[in-house]
Amino acid sequence: MLQPVCHKQVAFSDSFWAPRIEVNRAVTLPIEYEQCRKTGRIGMWEWKPGQPNPPHIFWDSDIAKWLEAAAYSLATHPDAKLEKLADDVIDRMARIQLPDGYLNTHYILLEPDKRWTHLRDCHELYCAGHLMEAAAAYAQATGKRKFLDIMCRYADHIDRTFGPRKGQKRGYCGHPEIELALVKLYRAAEERRYLSAAKYFVDERGRAPNYFDQEARQRGEDPAHAWARPEYYQAHRPLREQRDAVGHAVRALYLCSGMADVASETGDASLVAACRRLWKSVTQRRMYITGGVGSSRHGERFTCDYDLPNETAYAETCANIALVFFAHRMLQMEADGAYADVMERALYNGVLSGVSLDGKRFFYANPLTAHPRAYAARPGDDHGGHTDLVRQEWFGCACCPPNIARLLASLGQYVYAQKGDALFVHLYAGGGMNCEIAGQRVVVQQRTEYPWQGKVLLEVAPGKPAEFTVALRIPGWCRDAKIRIDGKAVKTVGLTRKGYVHLRRKWRPGDRIELALAMPVERIESRPEIRSNCGQVALQRGPVVYCLEQVDNGPDLADIALPRAAKLTAQWKPRLLGGCVTIQGQALRRDSREWDDALYQPATGKHKRVPVQAVPYCVWNNRKPGEMRVWIREA
Amino acid sequence: MLQPVCHKQVAFSDSFWAPRIEVNRAVTLPIEYEQCRKTGRIGMWEWKPGQPNPPHIFWDSDIAKWLEAAAYSLATHPDAKLEKLADDVIDRMARIQLPDGYLNTHYILLEPDKRWTHLRDCHELYCAGHLMEAAAAYAQATGKRKFLDIMCRYADHIDRTFGPRKGQKRGYCGHPEIELALVKLYRAAEERRYLSAAKYFVDERGRAPNYFDQEARQRGEDPAHAWARPEYYQAHRPLREQRDAVGHAVRALYLCSGMADVASETGDASLVAACRRLWKSVTQRRMYITGGVGSSRHGERFTCDYDLPNETAYAETCANIALVFFAHRMLQMEADGAYADVMERALYNGVLSGVSLDGKRFFYANPLTAHPRAYAARPGDDHGGHTDLVRQEWFGCACCPPNIARLLASLGQYVYAQKGDALFVHLYAGGGMNCEIAGQRVVVQQRTEYPWQGKVLLEVAPGKPAEFTVALRIPGWCRDAKIRIDGKAVKTVGLTRKGYVHLRRKWRPGDRIELALAMPVERIESRPEIRSNCGQVALQRGPVVYCLEQVDNGPDLADIALPRAAKLTAQWKPRLLGGCVTIQGQALRRDSREWDDALYQPATGKHKRVPVQAVPYCVWNNRKPGEMRVWIREA
Repeated sequence: MLQPVCHKQVAFSDSFWAPRIEVNRAVTLPIEYEQCRKTGRIGMWEWKPGQPNPPHIFWDSDIAKWLEAAAYSLATHPDAKLEKLADDVIDRMARIQLPDGYLNTHYILLEPDKRWTHLRDCHELYCAGHLMEAAAAYAQATGKRKFLDIMCRYADHIDRTFGPRKGQKRGYCGHPEIELALVKLYRAAEERRYLSAAKYFVDERGRAPNYFDQEARQRGEDPAHAWARPEYYQAHRPLREQRDAVGHAVRALYLCSGMADVASETGDASLVAACRRLWKSVTQRRMYITGGVGSSRHGERFTCDYDLPNETAYAETCANIALVFFAHRMLQMEADGAYADVMERALYNGVLSGVSLDGKRFFYANPLTAHPRAYAARPGDDHGGHTDLVRQEWFGCACCPPNIARLLASLGQYVYAQKGDALFVHLYAGGGMNCEIAGQRVVVQQRTEYPWQGKVLLEVAPGKPAEFTVALRIPGWCRDAKIRIDGKAVKTVGLTRKGYVHLRRKWRPGDRIELALAMPVERIESRPEIRSNCGQVALQRGPVVYCLEQVDNGPDLADIALPRAAKLTAQWKPRLLGGCVTIQGQALRRDSREWDDALYQPATGKHKRVPVQAVPYCVWNNRKPGEMRVWIREA
Repeated sequence: MLQPVCHKQVAFSDSFWAPRIEVNRAVTLPIEYEQCRKTGRIGMWEWKPGQPNPPHIFWDSDIAKWLEAAAYSLATHPDAKLEKLADDVIDRMARIQLPDGYLNTHYILLEPDKRWTHLRDCHELYCAGHLMEAAAAYAQATGKRKFLDIMCRYADHIDRTFGPRKGQKRGYCGHPEIELALVKLYRAAEERRYLSAAKYFVDERGRAPNYFDQEARQRGEDPAHAWARPEYYQAHRPLREQRDAVGHAVRALYLCSGMADVASETGDASLVAACRRLWKSVTQRRMYITGGVGSSRHGERFTCDYDLPNETAYAETCANIALVFFAHRMLQMEADGAYADVMERALYNGVLSGVSLDGKRFFYANPLTAHPRAYAARPGDDHGGHTDLVRQEWFGCACCPPNIARLLASLGQYVYAQKGDALFVHLYAGGGMNCEIAGQRVVVQQRTEYPWQGKVLLEVAPGKPAEFTVALRIPGWCRDAKIRIDGKAVKTVGLTRKGYVHLRRKWRPGDRIELALAMPVERIESRPEIRSNCGQVALQRGPVVYCLEQVDNGPDLADIALPRAAKLTAQWKPRLLGGCVTIQGQALRRDSREWDDALYQPATGKHKRVPVQAVPYCVWNNRKPGEMRVWIREA
């Protein structure tokens, strides 16, 4: 199993991620706290009957994700004021924990008799899971155990309450999350019971008779009237028998992440196989080119293979983040670059699009085509209305903003991993890392303009010369990678295994690896089965997927066609969108002024040449609102 | 004002319409009666409290449209059994009419105190209108006045109840229909008050303060909680101030038809202008190439200009029929072929697609792309589920089946019209017509294989030689029309006005006009603003729009691309789909077997050549269910 190098040991000093991480710390974290305060989330523990704004069943998880993000940030950037805010939240929360360890604000204050009676829809274990993740992160960041202890007591309570033994409830949560969280808690608190509890939730889910139905009957409800089908909750059959990623995409991918964690820890072959099966279902049949997942707004869910409409894409920010989690865990199970490719695809595109450059606004859905006029005229349709047109400051169901905050604050953990005396480099980003390897403290410094340039210089500096492996990922998008060590070309044939070039030698302080990843502008096509993309290409350069925006190219983007032979040029624009490489080219489009009043006419083939500029998808909608389009017609 | 030649005087003997009309008479009318019987519609008048299946507010209109269809059929094809069924329905209905003339089954039997208290949503005047249309048709077909007298008494009641005078309600119906119906009743019963009542409803609609709001308050409801906005009902502002066709498409177009009727009868210039404005909004900005209208299932409505998605198109059969009504009325106001072009477009495509070739099954929605797998995976989305995939035997809200039945049974009325001593030929179809013109009984016989062939032979036979005009429509789709009279070429320059060639001469029995309309296969493109069609063409030949079906071309139709230069050949297939002209050609598509597991890859440009067969859109889904596609990519 690969062991990620902790984000605490990874620093970014590049022009791509470092500013995002700094904005996340300095802008996003404070405004998210303020939103939580304004909306009653901060303060919910002191809520009294009769007051407005009672604690909602989701709120614990919103606070938890903010705390987790704050913890990651504190780990790399100490901040007494932020730590005090976090301590205060933890203290106030601690006060309402019940003697038996139970800790859910909504149920304790509003429905104390009803705890654990509606696992299907009430997010109790989900909230617990997010709090556990936060507690593990906070202990690691600050060394303080209080929050961790609180959550261990809660986990103990959950472990006593749920399980296959007599007197226990054989339930599991409608919204998976507790599974991966218990594995984190197991690792943080070194309590093996938590891993067993995670395994129980994974094993039990979807078994017949369906727990959600039994539970509904106990509440006096007819299970046939449930508002969603068991597939929505991934509870239609046992996980090892599920062949397709179905239902609510965030739930599905949190569940897959938890499954992968349990599989890694237990080595359970049937569970590993189930993870691989669902991985393939998602990434080979149900994923947008941006790493977005969940094609339908209705149920925020997966639909069927190759059904990936662009304009009505949901691709919730949380789902795209969850895909990063799943990919990262699969990568820990097996050092296969295919997992890192998807992780990188989601990070640079469908995840990062979820937050504005200034860190103040968020997308919930991340469609691949935007058409404001039509959205406005279609309230109630598959289109999400204005929340898809411009990023919003907050949401009633506010899962996405703190989710992206915790991801950015912990981004360092995705860059490197160790297995034995091999150091894996998954991602390229300027900055430093240190870890213990082959008995030496090794410092690695990356110097690169990635993702804008394909050249990466890695300085490997062990304390003393030592033999170990540096395994460099050759991204799946790259068709020409060259490596030099200390100026001498390395033949990578024979050294490459599953997307990683394994460079084994006695490394000495000051050794330099030069990696040159050819990064031409690529026209990408999608499978013939994906009907929404036929005859169209997406522009990609390195890991970055591009889009056309109306502000650069005028309206009616659908009419723009790119000749197959048209030259496309990458151009660095230092003052555009925080500094980015754009793609410039010549395309064809029709001139609507040459039409009379008719809607339809015999095709003339008449076009005019127009310049086009494509910008990275992840930074769209940071200027004027307007049309946007990832897939561009080929002429 | 053009006067349509009544369907009673027009006979079809062609291979296109005649079989459809016969199936409509022999199959559709009986099964619709049977459906009405099985569902409780026939028999609702005898419903007693406590019995199941109480009369629904729509049911009078379903019965009315069936009666109207039966009447049209009886007019051209006497049938004692059918007439007895109709008489029985009329007798049973008559028994519940109240002494004051009021006649609504639901309100009389279920909510007698609530009549005229909820015009916005309860369809009372709408049902009355359909009954009036039926009564006018039945009197004309059978010479029996009973039904007409019933409806005149009801109309008198309505005329007393609604209007601007003191003590009258200043209301109008949430679902327009009464306006055009009152004009029909005025013409049938020759009672001018009915025209005035129609004019009142047209003039009053949308005035401030909004009647629906006032009425809601009287019911104790908050108008702000109405389930739809005033635009849905076309009641957001007075009709003469409305600039765009908005809201529920059937309502909008029934309203436009009534407006056009009132405008024709009164010559009201501001109303004529309003009709023209809404005509342009619909046909120049909001109409599918099939003559389908209403882009969104949510509210079954118009959305915004150029928003015409194909896969989620609603284009309700009733709305497309209503567009025929509106076009026919505009054509009566002004002999402009542009109106007839739209009428023909809807008739041959989006209307006829609403019923199966065997007359037994119906589409409610008429999308331009069908993708069964995705529909099935998206219940609750914009897609309509299985009702869009295969025609259904009936619907809970059963407006479309009897609507198409009445249209087909009265199709003759759309072919010819008279104005003074000019005979206008709007449509071409094999068969005979007779009318009185220039003091003579004139018989016209059309011999043609239209729409499969562009040659039309018209034999004009006045009783005695007489001077009059025969005005032949040159369809908008035709770019090369030639006319010969008695073998001699006629120069049409100077004779053509707004799409009609006016042939004036002394016509003698046996005179023959040969019209040759060039009918090549055309690739049609749509405006650059219609994002769903960019880079694609629709195939059209004559008035017939074509589509690809999976049964002919395999799955993944979106991947098929037609090279601009590819030869397309029209081919008559006598045994296919009742006999039709298909379009054959060679196209390009990719081979998914050449893909590995990836969803995305650098574009290769690799294609293979495949034969394609397109069939008329109006007969799609008469073989195996599967994908369908009107707009085809251009390579």
